[in-house]
Formats: sequence, structure tokens, C-alpha cells
Amino acid sequence: MTNDPPDHRDRILDTAAEQVRRFGEAKTNVVDIAKAMGLSHSAIYRHFRSKADIFDALAARTMAEEAELAARFVNADGSAGDRLRGLVLALHRSKRAKLGDDPEIHGLYRRIVTERPDLVADYARRMTVLVRQVLEDGVNGGEFHIPELDAAAGVVRDAVTVFIHPAHVEQAVLVGLDMEPRLHAVMDALTLSFSASRRA
Amino acid sequence: MTNDPPDHRDRILDTAAEQVRRFGEAKTNVVDIAKAMGLSHSAIYRHFRSKADIFDALAARTMAEEAELAARFVNADGSAGDRLRGLVLALHRSKRAKLGDDPEIHGLYRRIVTERPDLVADYARRMTVLVRQVLEDGVNGGEFHIPELDAAAGVVRDAVTVFIHPAHVEQAVLVGLDMEPRLHAVMDALTLSFSASRRA
Repeated sequence: MTNDPPDHRDRILDTAAEQVRRFGEAKTNVVDIAKAMGLSHSAIYRHFRSKADIFDALAARTMAEEAELAARFVNADGSAGDRLRGLVLALHRSKRAKLGDDPEIHGLYRRIVTERPDLVADYARRMTVLVRQVLEDGVNGGEFHIPELDAAAGVVRDAVTVFIHPAHVEQAVLVGLDMEPRLHAVMDALTLSFSASRRA
Repeated sequence: MTNDPPDHRDRILDTAAEQVRRFGEAKTNVVDIAKAMGLSHSAIYRHFRSKADIFDALAARTMAEEAELAARFVNADGSAGDRLRGLVLALHRSKRAKLGDDPEIHGLYRRIVTERPDLVADYARRMTVLVRQVLEDGVNGGEFHIPELDAAAGVVRDAVTVFIHPAHVEQAVLVGLDMEPRLHAVMDALTLSFSASRRA
């Protein structure tokens, strides 16, 4: 491990993703990944215990990238309501783009969503923390009145799951449904409830 | 078909469900169902084309039962807000009870959710019509101010999918999560937004 360049792990994941894209998950193995990188398979095993370990890491990295995408909205300009909507919309579009472009990669994630609920729960927790920060900003700026921030962040998480969970986004793509008007309608209702309670 | 008692079809479905409960979907076939009913398999084929046809009808019947359950809240007493919440809660509890009691039956529904999106879409449409009726009652009684009833019914449908879709409820059961506090929090936000817009 000591002589590897620091991005070796990332390059292995990139190569694994490319192989899955081209040949499918079942036909991708550690030897193929090593060969495509001009390495021996033992070089791969220095970083990952198994093919399954590589695929889990690939899913975890994608989730981390989405968390970064979402985090940009926490410190962006604009009202809390707009940033909250922007965050949810960005996650929805990211999922949708992945589904359209990479059906094989998506199959991989779909399997992991089922087999690794711990990764999914961790993803949901991170997103909920980011949502909570935007809501707190909204409270501090007088835009929202929210008695319980944790509960409100949970409401956003639950109410927008249908726009972000891969199974639902996949279904929408399959039937050619544009979910964005629905997403905006839900965000309208949520932001109205967060600002309305101020007057209650 | 002419000499069958009118409930023959229902009895076939009941027997099929019982067989699936006891032996699993893969090990249940038309001959077994016929044998358990003391009939020849041709008696079954008078009603259903195949085993798959029976299972689809079983799922469709369960969905129809849930629609009946939900319909009770449309004409019940109480505020529209309480009835809307009661409707969603009843559907959530019905799903949860099915998951706990009948894992084999649930496996069947899970497969159908994937393979028959048309049945699921039809279920969602029927539920959304019922939700719309409750919202309209709320508007007529001055409890809600909702400019677009169809859009608002869609908001409810989308925001509560996480509490009603079998995949999510199953996941919650697996990890021992009680979703009811979350469901109430989402319903609080939705009813607040439906009543708040009156003042906007």
C-alpha cells in the first residue's frame, strides 16, 4: 500500500465503474479490473478484499459525491426555501441522470440499496443533517418558524424520498414521467408549512 | 363458468393465498390449489389462465381491499384533516400488518410491484381520487384553502409514498423502525400547508 499513489483507490473504482458500464456487473471481476489498469490482481487486493468490496465502495463514493452536491446548497446565496428546493432538485436530477446514462451502474446501485441498508441509512442521515442546516438558516433569518428542527428535517427527508430513492426514480424514467412538477408541488407545500407556522 | 357459485373466484384466491402462505410462491401451482379445493385443475382454468394470472388477481384484490379501507375515511365524521390522516395511517398499518403476518404473501406483492407497474399506478390513482375527495370536503367546509385540488392530492400521494409503498414499509419492519411518528409529522406539515394557504 505504501508505494501506491494516493489516488490509486479512486482509479480502481473508476476502472471498475467503466467495466460495469461496458460489460455489466456479473461479467466484471478483479482480474479484468487489474488487466484494464495494467496491474496484477494482487495490486487490487491491497485496497479491496473482493469484487463485492469494490462495488460497495463505488456505491459509497457515489453517495459521498451526492452529499457534496447537496452541501453546496447549505452555504449558497438565496432564501432558505430556494436552497432547500435546489438541494432536493439537484439530488433528483443527479439520480435521474445516472439512470438514463448508466443502466448497468444503476443495476449495481439497486442491488446495493437492497443488500446494504446501512449505506442507505447513512446516506439519508447525512442528507438530513444538510437539510436541517438549511432549515436552521431559515429560522435564523426569520423566513421559517420551526419549533423542532430535527422533526422538520425528517419531514423533508420522508416527503421527498419518492423523488430521490433510486427505485422510484427508475420507475419514473421507465414510464417517461417527468417528476419535477410534482417535486415543486411538494416543496411548495413544505415551505408553506415551514413559513406558515410562524403565523399559527 | 355458468354453474360456479358466484364466489368461486374469491375462493380460488383465498386458497391460493393460503398455499403461498404455507409453501411459498414457487411451490404453489394450479394443481395444488385445485387439490386443496377438491376440484380438478380445469375448474381453476375456467377462471384464470395461469398461476401468474391467479397471483396478479390476488394482488389486485388486496389493493381493492385497501381502496375500500381508505374509502371509509371519505364519508366518515370528523375534520378533513383528521380523516386525511386517518386514511394514510390506515393504509400504513394495513401494509405493516401484512408484512408482519405474511412474509410469503409479501414476497408475492413485492414481485408484482416490480413486474406490474400498471397495477401499482392504478392503485395510486384510486387512492389519489379518495384523497382529493377529502381535500375537497375540507375546502367546502372552510378548513382548507387549496387552489388546485388535483395538485394537492398529488402532493399527499407523493409525500406519503414512503409510508405506504411496500418496499419502504418492509425496510422499516426489518430494522424495527416505528414510522408512525414520522407519518404524523408529515401529515402535520401537509395539513398546516393546506390550511395556511388560506391566510397567504
